[in-house]
Amino acid sequence: MTATAAPPATSPLAGHEAKIDALRETGHWLWQRGFSLGTSSNYSVVVSRDPLELLITASGKDKGRLTRADFVIVDRDGKATSPGQPKSSAETLLHTVVAELPGVGAVLHTHSVWATVLSDLFFKQGAVEIAGYEMLKGLDGITTHEHTSQIEIFENTQDIPQLAEQVRERLTNSIRPLKHGYLIRKHGMYTWGKDLDEARRHVEIIEFLLECTARRLMLTGGLHPAS
Amino acid sequence: MTATAAPPATSPLAGHEAKIDALRETGHWLWQRGFSLGTSSNYSVVVSRDPLELLITASGKDKGRLTRADFVIVDRDGKATSPGQPKSSAETLLHTVVAELPGVGAVLHTHSVWATVLSDLFFKQGAVEIAGYEMLKGLDGITTHEHTSQIEIFENTQDIPQLAEQVRERLTNSIRPLKHGYLIRKHGMYTWGKDLDEARRHVEIIEFLLECTARRLMLTGGLHPAS
Amino acid sequence: MTATAAPPATSPLAGHEAKIDALRETGHWLWQRGFSLGTSSNYSVVVSRDPLELLITASGKDKGRLTRADFVIVDRDGKATSPGQPKSSAETLLHTVVAELPGVGAVLHTHSVWATVLSDLFFKQGAVEIAGYEMLKGLDGITTHEHTSQIEIFENTQDIPQLAEQVRERLTNSIRPLKHGYLIRKHGMYTWGKDLDEARRHVEIIEFLLECTARRLMLTGGLHPAS
Amino acid sequence: MTATAAPPATSPLAGHEAKIDALRETGHWLWQRGFSLGTSSNYSVVVSRDPLELLITASGKDKGRLTRADFVIVDRDGKATSPGQPKSSAETLLHTVVAELPGVGAVLHTHSVWATVLSDLFFKQGAVEIAGYEMLKGLDGITTHEHTSQIEIFENTQDIPQLAEQVRERLTNSIRPLKHGYLIRKHGMYTWGKDLDEARRHVEIIEFLLECTARRLMLTGGLHPAS
Repeated sequence: MTATAAPPATSPLAGHEAKIDALRETGHWLWQRGFSLGTSSNYSVVVSRDPLELLITASGKDKGRLTRADFVIVDRDGKATSPGQPKSSAETLLHTVVAELPGVGAVLHTHSVWATVLSDLFFKQGAVEIAGYEMLKGLDGITTHEHTSQIEIFENTQDIPQLAEQVRERLTNSIRPLKHGYLIRKHGMYTWGKDLDEARRHVEIIEFLLECTARRLMLTGGLHPAS
Repeated sequence: MTATAAPPATSPLAGHEAKIDALRETGHWLWQRGFSLGTSSNYSVVVSRDPLELLITASGKDKGRLTRADFVIVDRDGKATSPGQPKSSAETLLHTVVAELPGVGAVLHTHSVWATVLSDLFFKQGAVEIAGYEMLKGLDGITTHEHTSQIEIFENTQDIPQLAEQVRERLTNSIRPLKHGYLIRKHGMYTWGKDLDEARRHVEIIEFLLECTARRLMLTGGLHPAS
Repeated sequence: MTATAAPPATSPLAGHEAKIDALRETGHWLWQRGFSLGTSSNYSVVVSRDPLELLITASGKDKGRLTRADFVIVDRDGKATSPGQPKSSAETLLHTVVAELPGVGAVLHTHSVWATVLSDLFFKQGAVEIAGYEMLKGLDGITTHEHTSQIEIFENTQDIPQLAEQVRERLTNSIRPLKHGYLIRKHGMYTWGKDLDEARRHVEIIEFLLECTARRLMLTGGLHPAS
Repeated sequence: MTATAAPPATSPLAGHEAKIDALRETGHWLWQRGFSLGTSSNYSVVVSRDPLELLITASGKDKGRLTRADFVIVDRDGKATSPGQPKSSAETLLHTVVAELPGVGAVLHTHSVWATVLSDLFFKQGAVEIAGYEMLKGLDGITTHEHTSQIEIFENTQDIPQLAEQVRERLTNSIRPLKHGYLIRKHGMYTWGKDLDEARRHVEIIEFLLECTARRLMLTGGLHPAS
């Protein structure tokens, strides 16, 4: 990645250079993997907990070539904390709703082929069920392969506040709250972690498990339209 | 990419070094992705609007290793603007016909596996229909996933002037003109944008959507010869 | 890979820098290939034969970004040879049981998509049978393609000592002992060699042969649930 | 690739450094593409025509990490031209039989997954037939997509002299001689060209066309065992 100048000392981004560079490197890696093509995807890290503030990618930027200027600091309502910053994505509220959870330090939104395809094929079941894989132990809090994860699927919409409310309800559900990540139909995946490293690990693990699911289906006859 | 000397000041390429290097980098990236293998593919950018002049890759060059000398300036008839330049591709007219449209700054012609295979399997339907994907919003002018794109398919031919006329008719159609890109049967894809960045984004987005289409078909039983 | 300081002279890792760097480079390569995502996988090399001592990756490290500190020296019971070292993986005994064999210098544990999927689909047969491929000659001791390898599959468990015993029994079997590598169901692969280069070659060869097996099945109709 | 010292002036390799480095770079690229894993594959270029002498990779070397010492000069019988050189591959005669053809400057032997799988599935038909693809024009002498290439398949054997004779017969056939390349069943591919660049282009083109063939089959129901 090309070296770029630090933001001016008066910018709200000043002092966040290390986090910005970590997100830029994350973007380059996710673009190379094919999980963040074009200007799709958004990434954020928590920079203040009380009040909640997120450092998040600006809207419409190529994720393989992020510069230090392609970021915004937003509050828990997804609004820029000071004027003169670039616009953040329309999906910013899907980041803040997760970042409000205690213990969340980073949120990654990606668009892989398998997440996009499986989110549609399993939509009626409500989730992609992943059971019995050793790799599940790469997800925070899972200590045995004898575990079943439901990667839930939400209907896609352009009404982001409404979707954010649906996600909040599932995140804060007292019986079986959403963990690790979820899919949006024909759209992509959200994952998170206590810090950026854990969120990156969760992307790798869930994408691996979705690919195993898809390739296993191809070898055993696939999902048929009627099913 | 290895550094190469600038063209001599008397070359028609002089002064276009930045655009040349951007196309060279584009070629290297498309070759790495497997979309421009061998000496296939051609890329162009508009360098003059009135009269129309394009900077375009010379014929028969390895797209992963373009040098600064592997380019030509051509006019709207696809002819070199001055003698002594390398030959441009036989498909140059397929670039100029698109570049004549107002607002087009760059044209990319690629050959991926999925574009090649789907252009044949969907030939009878006349287009690959892509509907309901969030990633469609990466195409210029599309603001919701509730959209259907028809990636039209033209029959392959070695008679490029005739194909260029067919494409012109569809590009300038007053009711439903071609947008973003099209396929040529068992051959490849043409895409464009207001500048090279947008054309690159359109390659990434359409290739992603073609791959989703193909992998979804593999999971649901595929297209059968009779269909 | 970023340069990192050598371990202090008092560390049990002192003097093993070349082996450590070779394992770090191996981890980066396996991560890039998608065989060691997240913090999965473990790699080891024999550093002493009598008594047996292994240099092995520490538990829970990202295999694409191993540092010189992310290693431990363990004895044949999988215990650290001196205090103050990081924890080694729970699967350390699966390394030592192989390293005890005469002529073994390195053991690699990986998690590819195909190993994970085929280890489940062929579990009832007990092995993935690979026959007649020229590439089999890349496995130590095989000199003709007219050969059949059984890549055996063990049931996955969190009881590593018990699994290590099962593996030992097969490794030391007097009639048809395990050679080159084996799979663990829905988990991954273990391979080994006389040195790290040979173990790496065995990963490449077995993964290639598993991919050939899987793609051949996809082209010929696949495995059906009832089969 | 790490820099390496030139061979001593007395070595038969002295003076061939540029060709050696081009083959090393070719090996690294083919290894990265997954076409030359482990120590499989061999590459050669003609260094003398009368008498015929080839510069060829030595036996058993990792193709992703070739050093300047990993090469041999052989004569038309596949014998080293002077003592003290490393051993060349058992398949050297498959290089010399092609290099004897007028106009051949380089021969590449690779092992991709698709070449390996399709060479078995199409063995009974005797060839993989590839027709109507624009990309065929990337093969020397083909000027229209309205062309059918037969990528012929030979049975695998460890008797290389016998196989070399079969290949010679097809290469020198007066009616329809072998062109561009051929497959060996469950083994891999041989391709060639007037120089290394053309041979590399032929690898890319034929591999692309084999992948199109395979993926088209997967989308249309595949080859069934009875077919």
